[in-house]
Amino acid sequence: MTAKRRIEIFSAGCAVCNEVVEQVKSMACPSCDITVLDMHEQSIAARAKVLGIKSLPAVVIDGKLADCCANRGIDESVLRAAGVGSPI
Amino acid sequence: MTAKRRIEIFSAGCAVCNEVVEQVKSMACPSCDITVLDMHEQSIAARAKVLGIKSLPAVVIDGKLADCCANRGIDESVLRAAGVGSPI
Repeated sequence: MTAKRRIEIFSAGCAVCNEVVEQVKSMACPSCDITVLDMHEQSIAARAKVLGIKSLPAVVIDGKLADCCANRGIDESVLRAAGVGSPI
Repeated sequence: MTAKRRIEIFSAGCAVCNEVVEQVKSMACPSCDITVLDMHEQSIAARAKVLGIKSLPAVVIDGKLADCCANRGIDESVLRAAGVGSPI
């Protein structure tokens, strides 16, 4: 069986995620085996947590979260600096 | 009418987004008026595109995308460097 690169895209099925699914598909080659995983499924959400996924869409290549999708999510200090939590 | 800070959270309703909604709510104060916007709605997705939202969840404060949510999304060069599109 020919070796394949396992590419998983964690998606919530919205426009932003769907656009990335198409973008990754357009980049792929015959060695790239792409699976789109639905974050609304509990088992997928649990795996996303283990992988450290904090924002979507997220691309995982051969079990590793791509660098451009890692260390994402909100930053409380940034939100506070923008005013969140400060009485007007 | 007392001034309020308009905080909008663009969400796709998955576990990752829901966690951030709770996190922002826990940071908020009486001046913070929080709205959760469903990215599955076309009008919301269209507005997200205008705001430059490339990943979710995304926090917009008084109409401006928070810095920690800006310039996100996948990076093709990073994905290529990780192997996407390269025949094995």
